Amino acid sequence: MRTGIATVCLSGTLKEKMQACAIAGFDGIEIFEQDLVTSSLSPEDVRKMAADLGLTLDLYQPFRDFDSVTEDLLAANLRRAEAKFRLMSRLGMDTILVCTNVATATIDDDDLRAQQLAALADLAGEHGVKVAYEALAWGKYVNDYEHAHRLVAKVDHPNLGTCLDSFHILSRDWDTAPIEDINADKIFFVQVADAPKLSMDVLSWSRHYRVFPGEGQFELAKFMGHVVRAGYTGPVSLEVFNDVFRQSDVERTAVDAMRSLIWLEEQSAKWLDTNAPAAGNAAGAGGTQAAARRRYPMELATLPQVAEPAGFNFAEVKAADTGVLEKVLGQLGFEFNGRHRTKDVQLWTMGHARVIINEQAPEAAEPAIAALGFDVDSPVIASARAQQLKAPVVPRKSQANEEVFQGFSAPDSTEIFLCQGNPDGTAAWTREFGEGLEVPSGARTAVIDHVNLAQPWQHFDEAVLFYTSALALEPQPYAEVASPSGLVRSQVMQTSDRDVRLVLNLAPVIQQDGADPGTAPRKTYQEHIAFAVDDLVATARAARDRGLAFLQIPENYYEDLDARFDLDPGFLGTLRDLNLLYDRDADGEFLHFYTATVGSVFFEMVERRGNYDGYGAPNAPVRHAVQYDHLHDLTKTNH
Amino acid sequence: MRTGIATVCLSGTLKEKMQACAIAGFDGIEIFEQDLVTSSLSPEDVRKMAADLGLTLDLYQPFRDFDSVTEDLLAANLRRAEAKFRLMSRLGMDTILVCTNVATATIDDDDLRAQQLAALADLAGEHGVKVAYEALAWGKYVNDYEHAHRLVAKVDHPNLGTCLDSFHILSRDWDTAPIEDINADKIFFVQVADAPKLSMDVLSWSRHYRVFPGEGQFELAKFMGHVVRAGYTGPVSLEVFNDVFRQSDVERTAVDAMRSLIWLEEQSAKWLDTNAPAAGNAAGAGGTQAAARRRYPMELATLPQVAEPAGFNFAEVKAADTGVLEKVLGQLGFEFNGRHRTKDVQLWTMGHARVIINEQAPEAAEPAIAALGFDVDSPVIASARAQQLKAPVVPRKSQANEEVFQGFSAPDSTEIFLCQGNPDGTAAWTREFGEGLEVPSGARTAVIDHVNLAQPWQHFDEAVLFYTSALALEPQPYAEVASPSGLVRSQVMQTSDRDVRLVLNLAPVIQQDGADPGTAPRKTYQEHIAFAVDDLVATARAARDRGLAFLQIPENYYEDLDARFDLDPGFLGTLRDLNLLYDRDADGEFLHFYTATVGSVFFEMVERRGNYDGYGAPNAPVRHAVQYDHLHDLTKTNH
Repeated sequence: MRTGIATVCLSGTLKEKMQACAIAGFDGIEIFEQDLVTSSLSPEDVRKMAADLGLTLDLYQPFRDFDSVTEDLLAANLRRAEAKFRLMSRLGMDTILVCTNVATATIDDDDLRAQQLAALADLAGEHGVKVAYEALAWGKYVNDYEHAHRLVAKVDHPNLGTCLDSFHILSRDWDTAPIEDINADKIFFVQVADAPKLSMDVLSWSRHYRVFPGEGQFELAKFMGHVVRAGYTGPVSLEVFNDVFRQSDVERTAVDAMRSLIWLEEQSAKWLDTNAPAAGNAAGAGGTQAAARRRYPMELATLPQVAEPAGFNFAEVKAADTGVLEKVLGQLGFEFNGRHRTKDVQLWTMGHARVIINEQAPEAAEPAIAALGFDVDSPVIASARAQQLKAPVVPRKSQANEEVFQGFSAPDSTEIFLCQGNPDGTAAWTREFGEGLEVPSGARTAVIDHVNLAQPWQHFDEAVLFYTSALALEPQPYAEVASPSGLVRSQVMQTSDRDVRLVLNLAPVIQQDGADPGTAPRKTYQEHIAFAVDDLVATARAARDRGLAFLQIPENYYEDLDARFDLDPGFLGTLRDLNLLYDRDADGEFLHFYTATVGSVFFEMVERRGNYDGYGAPNAPVRHAVQYDHLHDLTKTNH
Repeated sequence: MRTGIATVCLSGTLKEKMQACAIAGFDGIEIFEQDLVTSSLSPEDVRKMAADLGLTLDLYQPFRDFDSVTEDLLAANLRRAEAKFRLMSRLGMDTILVCTNVATATIDDDDLRAQQLAALADLAGEHGVKVAYEALAWGKYVNDYEHAHRLVAKVDHPNLGTCLDSFHILSRDWDTAPIEDINADKIFFVQVADAPKLSMDVLSWSRHYRVFPGEGQFELAKFMGHVVRAGYTGPVSLEVFNDVFRQSDVERTAVDAMRSLIWLEEQSAKWLDTNAPAAGNAAGAGGTQAAARRRYPMELATLPQVAEPAGFNFAEVKAADTGVLEKVLGQLGFEFNGRHRTKDVQLWTMGHARVIINEQAPEAAEPAIAALGFDVDSPVIASARAQQLKAPVVPRKSQANEEVFQGFSAPDSTEIFLCQGNPDGTAAWTREFGEGLEVPSGARTAVIDHVNLAQPWQHFDEAVLFYTSALALEPQPYAEVASPSGLVRSQVMQTSDRDVRLVLNLAPVIQQDGADPGTAPRKTYQEHIAFAVDDLVATARAARDRGLAFLQIPENYYEDLDARFDLDPGFLGTLRDLNLLYDRDADGEFLHFYTATVGSVFFEMVERRGNYDGYGAPNAPVRHAVQYDHLHDLTKTNH
């Protein structure tokens, strides 16, 4: 699959955009007109730079408001088009995107439109230019790709073809199957964009909320499957207008974009393998589906295959001074399993929940979640997949006879390690820790239930795609939770069996009064690791006896809880007494408590009863408020 | 008018919110349930604190999903309600908001709903509680205030009344005139919120995009006029869910909120004065409209009246080292009119465009726009109005015989001064500058055309209300302009005669790769002052001869300009030669050029031909791109 991206997806100057596209590995780019008009690079400079960078210049875009106009306006539009055709010749480009008219169309007549498009195609032919005609979802008279293609077919000119854009098609819920009926020679270009399903006017939706494939909710693999079956072999190019991407680091966004296309390519191949072609299609008869897929003209690369991870292998917390961490884990009931034989790290375990305390932090570094280990079938294959998806590799030193972890860096810089888990939930590498207790206590079962990571706003969508594509986690619909510093967007990524649950939180930050808009806002958000146990009340009692500092839950909460759930007074008393939180739904019950925060990390202990599948979302505002209050008090004290 | 605000509008803890409301001067507050549930303050603490702060506790809210349910659920709901009534008694509160059912309604039957509401009202009566029933715009069966009130009227219970919320009414375009037909005794509460007119699902619109009155597009004065005519005398309380407000400084947001109610009160009085009441209304016959308005039971305070400003009196730029500013102004054709007799400031003029260069900046402070002066009829009255609207006063020292400026601070900290302008466009205070040229050159006419100020994102809406209410500028529909660092939201505020044009830009900031989410993003946006002249080409030629550093416009721009406008080759050559930009529309033509940036400020010279009323918006991306490129080059050089 030939990959492309429109320069409008990225921030920066045209030069910065082109360099970033080349570094990310795109085959070609679309030149967004405004990027050229505002650039100090001449068309010849752009042509040479693209050649030097190994990028093809696939599409000049957009040319607006051409068709369905009066005769006067047609003459002006042809003059305007000719200037652009001359410019394209200097750029060495041969395809221009012409969208259906929004602003100046006054005559709704397909015969007239066809005549006008024929005139444009004639002129384009004289300049060796191909016109790719695209139906905008909000085009005044033409807003449906089938309508646009009927016009193309009617004109039947070698210099006029169709451009298919997934956003304009899927935002309107047009059926994508008829794409297969289009003659491949007449599909001049294909643009892809994903989007969250929003109920808003389609123009605003398009201009602000498009995302890269895999970051939204459109059925893009199906769209691409039909495109492939139609016989298209040209570039598949991203055209994503997004307020966040345009403000983000250009090289990073380009890599995110490339990852989305690599993933889409794989998903498209899978869709073709598992969906029978329409009857009568050339590739339909005989052989396996995969073999059939391979007979389509577009080559679709696949990636090393991984199953979803079987569980968390470990979580790692790093600090300069690890004393408080050790104390809190001990109070929670974790046991110290010794120091690593060659590294300055400690192992703490409770059942199968393993926490590594890493002492190799820079001076004065506050405790923070540094790394997560996941159990996978084959760390090598999973690592190969992640690397093909352009995950940055994390080097980790190891000595002879030590397990080598395959690791890479997630978008928020958390290190992700791929581990070979044992079927019984143990981990072989724990042998490398020898000086502490010989045998971890097996009296209680305990596992890492979930990990909650705070994501910077500009990398939130990137993180969703990253964990989806590289780690085979499934994004769930996101929730918004109230906090004293604004709504917290919370996105659960999990495996189908729930053995891995990762929560990505996009936290707001309070802008301090009087602060310059350019100065750093106060960081108000923390991350945490949650452990599931069989008997939370017993765990809490034991922790209290060991002196644990619980997050203090306000009395008002228990009164509200009682109003909502009509709880047994004895049980309510226990909850109140131990600072436990409670939730209930049709599937079961959820008990949990939190520790006070250490640096930017805190811990949660949970007990799931029945088939409760959530995270106590109704209780999240309480936690946020108490943590905010605490942080605020600390801030005041420091003044 | 009794003023109120729901705690959900503000960020922080309940305590912080209550304190901010008291400081801003609200009469009372609504307690949002979650703010209490998550608080460590007991209900008794809250009651005492409110009393100490002089705040009434006007409404407990919201109680959700009560009506239209099965018998089982009704019993549970009544139990839940009773717990809240008991809590309200501890808080000393007597009114609760009950919204129409969204989630658990299964029976659509007005008789049953009335029975269930009657049962609730009976129970409320036993606890001395009044139930204010509100139709949510997305209520499952009841989503219209008239429907909700028919139920209230049907139940006819002293403890059941209506709550009117402007958002739920105006977002659905319900007619507000029938509010007058509601018996005032049955209107238990009134909530107000404004909103921009967005085409999206009403729930998301409501939860994220509400703004304070005067910051959106709803006809709130009319809504309030009908409420006043109905005879309502209770609190008028803000309930505004807004992502930005919830993340902003609480005290500042509370003041912004209070300003919006003060302004709404005035606008409501004006609406009543200029709109005849419906025939048959008690206050309808005889006397002036204003007199009639004063006969309604709700007292509406008015503010000192000001007309829109007649023009810019001056603009002030501040810097530690003013050398480059002086050079650029001189190159533009400004003349040095001397130093102030007692202050370290210089006066530079061109026709009636006056620029003060203030040398009293802290060491190493880069040149920046510090203040703007506006010509008003009466600086004292305008200042009194601004102060009643809670504008922070700026003290400015002056000696005997010097003009005293009335000044206050705008939301972005720009100082705004109110000046007594002369009808001929001169300013009396210029006499205080004596050491330079005696007579400013009157050869050319020139004025300040517009000033463009960058607004921090968290104060953008506040700024719109500020200039609307305090300075009588009229907000225009906002535009979005592409830049290399994202879309720039651009909001024009102007007078009806266009003698004052102020542009508020909400600029994106690029998040630097690898930077911690808490660190300061690179500031990428600048502010500018634009001067209008009669002959831009001559001005540009003279400036070039004096060695001015123009913002260099790329050649690609001129080629595109020619493609779009088919310009005379000689004229196009002049534009290109002088780095001039050009725009044309049905009303006229616009020529302009920019200087290079000095610190965070640059200058623009413009010529308006015909009735051109814009700002060359199609050219803004070119300016942004070139400035970005320049800034970026500087950044690179500094590394």
